[in-house]
Amino acid sequence: MVGLQVDQIAQELTRGQLPIPEKMTAVVLDAYTGVEALRVEQRPVPKPGKDEVLVKMAASPINPSDLAVLEGHYGFKLTPPIVPGGEGSGMVVAVGPGMIGRYFLGKRVACLNQGKGDGMWAEYVVTSAKGGVLPLNKAISLEQGAMSFVNPLTASTFLEIAQKCGHKAIVLTAAASSLGQMVNRLFRSAGLQVINIVRRDAQVEFLKEQGASVVLNSSKANFEEQLRDLCHQHDSHLAFDAVAGKMTGQLLTALPEHSKVIIYSALSREAVEASPSQIIFEDKAIDGFWLGPYISKKNLLQILRMWRRAQRLMLTELKSTIRAEIPLQEAKQAVKDYLDHMTGGKILLKPSYS
Amino acid sequence: MVGLQVDQIAQELTRGQLPIPEKMTAVVLDAYTGVEALRVEQRPVPKPGKDEVLVKMAASPINPSDLAVLEGHYGFKLTPPIVPGGEGSGMVVAVGPGMIGRYFLGKRVACLNQGKGDGMWAEYVVTSAKGGVLPLNKAISLEQGAMSFVNPLTASTFLEIAQKCGHKAIVLTAAASSLGQMVNRLFRSAGLQVINIVRRDAQVEFLKEQGASVVLNSSKANFEEQLRDLCHQHDSHLAFDAVAGKMTGQLLTALPEHSKVIIYSALSREAVEASPSQIIFEDKAIDGFWLGPYISKKNLLQILRMWRRAQRLMLTELKSTIRAEIPLQEAKQAVKDYLDHMTGGKILLKPSYS
Repeated sequence: MVGLQVDQIAQELTRGQLPIPEKMTAVVLDAYTGVEALRVEQRPVPKPGKDEVLVKMAASPINPSDLAVLEGHYGFKLTPPIVPGGEGSGMVVAVGPGMIGRYFLGKRVACLNQGKGDGMWAEYVVTSAKGGVLPLNKAISLEQGAMSFVNPLTASTFLEIAQKCGHKAIVLTAAASSLGQMVNRLFRSAGLQVINIVRRDAQVEFLKEQGASVVLNSSKANFEEQLRDLCHQHDSHLAFDAVAGKMTGQLLTALPEHSKVIIYSALSREAVEASPSQIIFEDKAIDGFWLGPYISKKNLLQILRMWRRAQRLMLTELKSTIRAEIPLQEAKQAVKDYLDHMTGGKILLKPSYS
Repeated sequence: MVGLQVDQIAQELTRGQLPIPEKMTAVVLDAYTGVEALRVEQRPVPKPGKDEVLVKMAASPINPSDLAVLEGHYGFKLTPPIVPGGEGSGMVVAVGPGMIGRYFLGKRVACLNQGKGDGMWAEYVVTSAKGGVLPLNKAISLEQGAMSFVNPLTASTFLEIAQKCGHKAIVLTAAASSLGQMVNRLFRSAGLQVINIVRRDAQVEFLKEQGASVVLNSSKANFEEQLRDLCHQHDSHLAFDAVAGKMTGQLLTALPEHSKVIIYSALSREAVEASPSQIIFEDKAIDGFWLGPYISKKNLLQILRMWRRAQRLMLTELKSTIRAEIPLQEAKQAVKDYLDHMTGGKILLKPSYS
């Protein structure tokens, strides 16, 4: 089993001798019914059209948003069968017509699934040269680079949102996740307080070992009271919530007047529940956050600036811990393992290439 | 039984001979347990302090917000016993020290309960000269004037909010209420479409007779589908919701992407329920509206301009229908009658004065 050989591909590309096979291995979802609808199949290697690139994939993580895709809870919902995988890394080995694509040929890139076609859990992926790929910083490995988009840009955006409104402290649920750890490091560097919420004592310990000063366990009896005290003590008026369901209402109640809960994931898979009195009489609001549309509102210059800043922090504040690298063929079992244990490092899927 | 005699009081005030009694009749709430905790008692007539005025009351309506107060669901919650009553009208018969109060002496005024003291269901009320009273337009009767604040300013503010963001159509729940009727007249005059939601066929007919073009009955089987179609057809991205509970989620689902539901009352008395996917992936938000704080953010000039505009429309767009005038002594039964039948005109409570 050999992974992506960047140097060899670069040489072959230079000589114009790069062989691109007819068929590839890909993970396919047959219906939006969860992990059991996943299978691995051989399918034709797609061909890039105008302003598109063909990426030979190196790695792709399993993100919570991928799980939402499998269950049909995500914002994109193309007609199945689809190839899942929200982001990844690889090398551009072919391009369609258009200037922009040509710029990327032979480059190591991070890829983002923009919801218009198949995702990254495959050996080859066609994606748009306009927003579907961005160049990887040389210092970043393909493994780290596979996780350049979703978590690093979400964490960066959370900081941008918090700073724009002058917040000094935020509340964060599902705080022991990879994203949660990044948010903690990034906000700490910027001098902002994070009030972390997790579900287990082990996660409390874990985050505290990593330097988090305030971590609450939501399964404790006095959680709501403690959260309320901390929100008022730190004058925190903003929460980023990955849980939804009852948690959103608990956050809303704990925060002082004139606060907002921004929901960015719904790990509980439950409807948001909130007290109307909190919303009417305490000037509290519920809003949503979805990375793709947020970023696509920026102009190219703003995006590139954000990208460069995030790439620069990929070895420090925005680094992901990798728990395991699993062959693409074993994606189904890998997703099951991830479902059983969602914190403690990322699982990367990697094509083998014979 | 004689009501407030404005001319007589004016003469007596001019001669400095106005007798103010020691005791008065007032409605009192003993606990936040609803209408059964109401009783009528004799209590001392309060004395105005610095920048305060004493109003001899003419009339005070029973508003939905008063019902929320009785049940302890309102934003203000002073320690009982309290005198309820959110707004009313009367004449200023005495003032405490301070220039501002003196301006109002002998004037017909509308009064607003600002949540700092007793309310309007009494023969005499002390309120702040800075925001608790505003002069009534000469053309407005004391009965209409008793309903100058809550509904007219809420309807005016809804129009202000809708126009500020360039909306051409809004959704309105509990649309057959007095406020709902005002909103319909005001928005129609301004050329904005209202998509009305009510719960009964009789209310559909009623609003249509009043000129509303779009009225939906939320108890019909195809309500959600119809609402969705209408929201998209009219490109409506804003809803004002007085119901909360499941209705908020239904509104959120029916509205197109990039929409907001503003909750201003919670007639269902149920927790807001909403799909997190709608909030995350469709850029939909839930916000609250409370008249008092909204207005208090304005400066005095803005408030007076808004007040004058609203007073000018009190005989047309912002007129309330009066169903019954009930003596203050019978407040408990009047509230019960209102609870049984909340649409179809306002019930006014009126002191009798022997």
